[in-house]
Amino acid sequence: MARVVVDVMPKPEILDPQGQAVARALPRLGFDGISDVRQGKHFELEVADDVDDETLAKIAVGLLSNPVIEDFVVRRVGQE
Amino acid sequence: MARVVVDVMPKPEILDPQGQAVARALPRLGFDGISDVRQGKHFELEVADDVDDETLAKIAVGLLSNPVIEDFVVRRVGQE
Repeated sequence: MARVVVDVMPKPEILDPQGQAVARALPRLGFDGISDVRQGKHFELEVADDVDDETLAKIAVGLLSNPVIEDFVVRRVGQE
Repeated sequence: MARVVVDVMPKPEILDPQGQAVARALPRLGFDGISDVRQGKHFELEVADDVDDETLAKIAVGLLSNPVIEDFVVRRVGQE
């Protein structure tokens, strides 16, 4: 088994109201020096060793992200 | 400026219905070999160089996660 991480983020040109809400809250709460926050999704998958990168990309496109408004990054983080 | 990533995941003992829904959908859609899916949040922050790790941890605990049910990982991914 391998652990695969998929990070899904709104594309740079897409508004991110959740991230903006966090960014606006930070100075109010006394945290300065954070100029931008973007919020996305983080998936951790336990994957059999015979699942190839092409299949993982299909899963990311079809299930984990909306490719119209989101980008994703797939990375293998460990073998078990 | 540095880019900081904060990944927030449900603690292992906490049910994750979103991840379970994805895990159940995969075989239906013809993707086999994925035994578990957990879903969390992924934040990308643009941070001034004088913001230290302690402050980042406070932000992660206070704003980005619910420490009762979620774990988080903070990592610096790049300098600009």
